[in-house]
Amino acid sequence: MTRDRIEILVESIKRLLRRGATKSLQNIVRKTHAADLSIVFRELSPTGMNTLFHMIKDIDKKVVLLSELEENTFLDFVKVIAIDDLVQVFEQMPADDAAELLGWLDEGMADEILQKMKKEDSLEVEHLMSYGEDTAGSIMMPDFIALKEDTCAKDVIAALQNEFLDVEMPFYVYVIDEYGRLVGVSSLRQLVVVQPDRPLKEFMAKDIVSVKTYTDSEDVAKLVARYDYLAVPVVDNDNRLVGIVTVDDVIDIISEEATGDILKMAGVGEDYIETQTVLRGTRIRLPWLFTSFLGGIGAFFIIGGFQESLAKFTYLAAFIPVIMGMGGNIGTQSSTIVVRGLATGKINTRDLWSVVFKELTIGLILGIVYGVFIGIVAQVRFHTELLSLELAFAVGLAVLVSMTVAALVGSLVPMLFEKANIDPAVATGPFVTTSVDIVSVYCYFMIATLLLGI
Amino acid sequence: MTRDRIEILVESIKRLLRRGATKSLQNIVRKTHAADLSIVFRELSPTGMNTLFHMIKDIDKKVVLLSELEENTFLDFVKVIAIDDLVQVFEQMPADDAAELLGWLDEGMADEILQKMKKEDSLEVEHLMSYGEDTAGSIMMPDFIALKEDTCAKDVIAALQNEFLDVEMPFYVYVIDEYGRLVGVSSLRQLVVVQPDRPLKEFMAKDIVSVKTYTDSEDVAKLVARYDYLAVPVVDNDNRLVGIVTVDDVIDIISEEATGDILKMAGVGEDYIETQTVLRGTRIRLPWLFTSFLGGIGAFFIIGGFQESLAKFTYLAAFIPVIMGMGGNIGTQSSTIVVRGLATGKINTRDLWSVVFKELTIGLILGIVYGVFIGIVAQVRFHTELLSLELAFAVGLAVLVSMTVAALVGSLVPMLFEKANIDPAVATGPFVTTSVDIVSVYCYFMIATLLLGI
Repeated sequence: MTRDRIEILVESIKRLLRRGATKSLQNIVRKTHAADLSIVFRELSPTGMNTLFHMIKDIDKKVVLLSELEENTFLDFVKVIAIDDLVQVFEQMPADDAAELLGWLDEGMADEILQKMKKEDSLEVEHLMSYGEDTAGSIMMPDFIALKEDTCAKDVIAALQNEFLDVEMPFYVYVIDEYGRLVGVSSLRQLVVVQPDRPLKEFMAKDIVSVKTYTDSEDVAKLVARYDYLAVPVVDNDNRLVGIVTVDDVIDIISEEATGDILKMAGVGEDYIETQTVLRGTRIRLPWLFTSFLGGIGAFFIIGGFQESLAKFTYLAAFIPVIMGMGGNIGTQSSTIVVRGLATGKINTRDLWSVVFKELTIGLILGIVYGVFIGIVAQVRFHTELLSLELAFAVGLAVLVSMTVAALVGSLVPMLFEKANIDPAVATGPFVTTSVDIVSVYCYFMIATLLLGI
Repeated sequence: MTRDRIEILVESIKRLLRRGATKSLQNIVRKTHAADLSIVFRELSPTGMNTLFHMIKDIDKKVVLLSELEENTFLDFVKVIAIDDLVQVFEQMPADDAAELLGWLDEGMADEILQKMKKEDSLEVEHLMSYGEDTAGSIMMPDFIALKEDTCAKDVIAALQNEFLDVEMPFYVYVIDEYGRLVGVSSLRQLVVVQPDRPLKEFMAKDIVSVKTYTDSEDVAKLVARYDYLAVPVVDNDNRLVGIVTVDDVIDIISEEATGDILKMAGVGEDYIETQTVLRGTRIRLPWLFTSFLGGIGAFFIIGGFQESLAKFTYLAAFIPVIMGMGGNIGTQSSTIVVRGLATGKINTRDLWSVVFKELTIGLILGIVYGVFIGIVAQVRFHTELLSLELAFAVGLAVLVSMTVAALVGSLVPMLFEKANIDPAVATGPFVTTSVDIVSVYCYFMIATLLLGI
């Protein structure tokens, strides 16, 4: 459903809720996809959510709706809904989704829900929750199709029709030995194509890509994306199959990773959420601003050291913004290109020097271009003043230096961080901008005082 | 394969290429997944690629390898490989991938390849290439499984084993009427579960989500991501089924969209590629720097207007960097949060005022915090000077104002752009930073001159 159609949906549902038009609401709810309802929920008051939720007849629809909710919407919703209704839904929910939602709740509530759930369901969920955050184990789905290698095609299909009827994504049939170790895989596609009486071991693929329970979820995502898999099996240290990560989760991971990088580079916490409280937002954003505050104070003392020069040539101050701005901006360009390049694998730390050298060259060229521009501006503006030529040359040179240094720092720093296994996105933003500010200001005044012989 | 293992692979292949150790190379090539070879290619010289390519026996492997190559690697590769080898691969390649690769070539070469391809293959590809860039039509796969609604389950399976044997992603069976119009869909899963003699119309799903050939590919991606589909059908204006977009393409779209946003916000062209020439890189990055150059010049003339104040209180200049820096950084934070929030659908233009108000509040709080900090610094540094208290108050107030305004502009501007259907990512970066710079400097000197009574 397109954004505008969602908006129309939201408006009409809100109106009907106000009017308490139960019948029409039930109609809409029946006709609307659960994933769309989850977006509608974002716009509703908790009581509104509650009313709507109880109009959903189909439990599976409730399951999808809840598992698609965002953290904050979900947390608002659980405030109003009866715990038993929640339990009922959680019992039907795929364990990986349930584990994620419960992870958002405070422990007390999560435990209460787990207590009330059927033992076999809650055990699965608790097991998943025991894996470290952002690992394959924590996002995998523990129900999958696994059969012994001598099962023949038609028996596999029979199994699909019976015991595996409620497996969420039955696109691969995994083959295990008597110890539950992963030995092969066959696609549902192959199954319908081969002779019904052929055993799995004859047509299964034996070169299987699998991940460990502790594999970083972003690496799992990269894997699935690169090989165009629909799911990747997760094994424990003894290569026993314990779950699968499916492509729909991978899509979420990739999009979240990108958002994380963008926010980190802007000096906002990786998991910054618009809908969180002002105070939390403030706390998350304070630290990076502090780094740049220190940078500013640094520049403050540097400039303070050039009081006399400024006293003689007050107009030197007027060039501070443009020199800082040009350096800061090209520095951001370089670091962004490198950070994103590293994240998408288009840049490799092995290419360190070629990448840095290229950015350096670009910085130099652009530095010359804008150095000349600014020199001209200075000359035009101050040609009456004495030493105006030296001034023009000084500011031009300052821009050139600041832009070149900025491109160098902006590309070198993230590369080095990556090499040192420090997340370049998180480290680059504050470090680059701050250091570039200081360097720019310092170089500017050094050059100016030298050339103007102050 | 993890990054380090890829690096090892690259190194050994390079070594073997130097030694011309054909046998061992053939072994490695046979054992390595085509997707991994495509990454190895990035690191090889054209001739190296050529040698390796001809060691691949399996044509399908060649197909995957080529379709996984990045634009620049592919363009290097086609310089060395014989056109007929290319044609051979393109004939086997899924039309959507072929269309993408040919789109990268200059027309002359693309035409030559299309000429040499078997008519039926080339027609499919040319058809795809005729759709607008970034539309569902241009990324869809034209081969899919479509059957009439009275076909019964076992006949569908029979069809899978024969006519549809080489369909790439056979997870949905689409149901069409006699005019080829899409009327239903059934999953491969359902097929093996239902009674073999039941016709499709009895168990197919009738509420089908489909997209038009001209639907924006990013909207298609959002759709697939939201509903956890494996593929979405593409129909023409008469609702005739013409292709499907599969989840593996969706993953690429989502990741590219995110990269595009990050680069645009940093004032770099959306499709900036690290590996492109220095000159192209320079040209792409020049424009945004020019905006910020104009901003700097603006600030230059503003400060120039306060010559006398600066002459009296030279140390006023020392505060310019910190005031500009704090404003600029919080502005970037706000605009990044809003732009990414809009892209991921977590922020909606309908929430304009609540979002802006929240950012404004955060800006105000952080402004007070850092205003006080800087006031203290000023007081400590200049307590001996006359009017030191007024100065401290002036700079503190300036920071407060500049940070509040920055948060306001940073959140309001992208929201307005989105409302006006202008890509907020592209417009925000330059606009926000530049305007914030000017406003900050102006407010600072106004406040200072007033309070210091200059």
